[in-house]
Amino acid sequence: MSLKIYTAGPEVFLPNAREVMAKKTALCAQYGFTAICPGDLDIPPQPTLYEFGLAISRVDEEMMDAADAIIANLTPFRGIAADVGTCFELGYMSAQGKLVTAYTNVVENHFERTKAYYNGAISVGEDGHKRGPDGLSLEDFDMIDNLMMHGGVIRRGGHIAVHKAAPDALYTDLTGFEDCLKALAKAHSAKTVDEGMRPEDLDASNDD
Amino acid sequence: MSLKIYTAGPEVFLPNAREVMAKKTALCAQYGFTAICPGDLDIPPQPTLYEFGLAISRVDEEMMDAADAIIANLTPFRGIAADVGTCFELGYMSAQGKLVTAYTNVVENHFERTKAYYNGAISVGEDGHKRGPDGLSLEDFDMIDNLMMHGGVIRRGGHIAVHKAAPDALYTDLTGFEDCLKALAKAHSAKTVDEGMRPEDLDASNDD
Repeated sequence: MSLKIYTAGPEVFLPNAREVMAKKTALCAQYGFTAICPGDLDIPPQPTLYEFGLAISRVDEEMMDAADAIIANLTPFRGIAADVGTCFELGYMSAQGKLVTAYTNVVENHFERTKAYYNGAISVGEDGHKRGPDGLSLEDFDMIDNLMMHGGVIRRGGHIAVHKAAPDALYTDLTGFEDCLKALAKAHSAKTVDEGMRPEDLDASNDD
Repeated sequence: MSLKIYTAGPEVFLPNAREVMAKKTALCAQYGFTAICPGDLDIPPQPTLYEFGLAISRVDEEMMDAADAIIANLTPFRGIAADVGTCFELGYMSAQGKLVTAYTNVVENHFERTKAYYNGAISVGEDGHKRGPDGLSLEDFDMIDNLMMHGGVIRRGGHIAVHKAAPDALYTDLTGFEDCLKALAKAHSAKTVDEGMRPEDLDASNDD
């Protein structure tokens, strides 16, 4: 059986979202997988913008319910952290025991990005925590983002790909996406879903 | 049976995190509920910071698995969007069919915050989408954050509380938290968990 892969990420906000999703779909097919791409591309008209948002939420959740795996694009979006919608989706798929993988197109880790957010003004508090000038503590765990995302993937044996994309290809570079496909293919060739593949069968290596 | 409530939010990063969690726990108790507070407060030592991060991820997920409900603090954190770890957790609990509620301590909605991020430089593309100078589209759905969070809560009949906190109480003001407790109490008094309370029993009103 072909794995159905939910392709989560902020590229749905790009002007060429359809083109990027088509490329992801083609790449999935090269590995024998079926892409399930989120977005508002085929949502029927709704009476209000609010109801349109709710309709997208419903369709995206139904897509995830139908998927076997997720490849989450955790590249920072409008700030130092991953797209929050993608993080919701990674949590959603993790709770369902699906195969979870993720990639990022920046090599600076979560701690380095947060430190830069504070212009390096980090101090160590009495409790041993590193803190910004606003008193908020920084996670320093050598992870690509908040520990719930990085830990959620790694603890399930999932793959995390880290790749330095060119600035003008921050959301379109699919090198990390393909790395995740390779990890899924390796696990899938060893054991098919029909035979009961579990998250722990995934390659746990981390090219971080 | 007393509802067990997972109290998610970025207040775990505050210097007085323990104090805020104690207040949340006391508030939950006032409504007859049991708080389950995340954080690294009681994590045993680990060989590396990385493994410490993984250990927190495991403990937090186990806490969620044991909880009946979540109150997610979606107040913007280090930028214009909610804390990404909290978003993962809201997705995780949504997928498990738990009772989901959320609050925010800012009244500007997701669209208004994103527009401010672009200093108001928004244009409408040929596809009808509002876009920033970087070409990325903006969600304009009158929601407190990305549609996966707001939609995920509302579509499950969950409560979303919006409250304007003082700047120095952005992460400590518990007005919205208590509003969520009231919504959970109302649903709980009508039908107990033992009798099979479902997310659709929750008050769907939105004080936004």
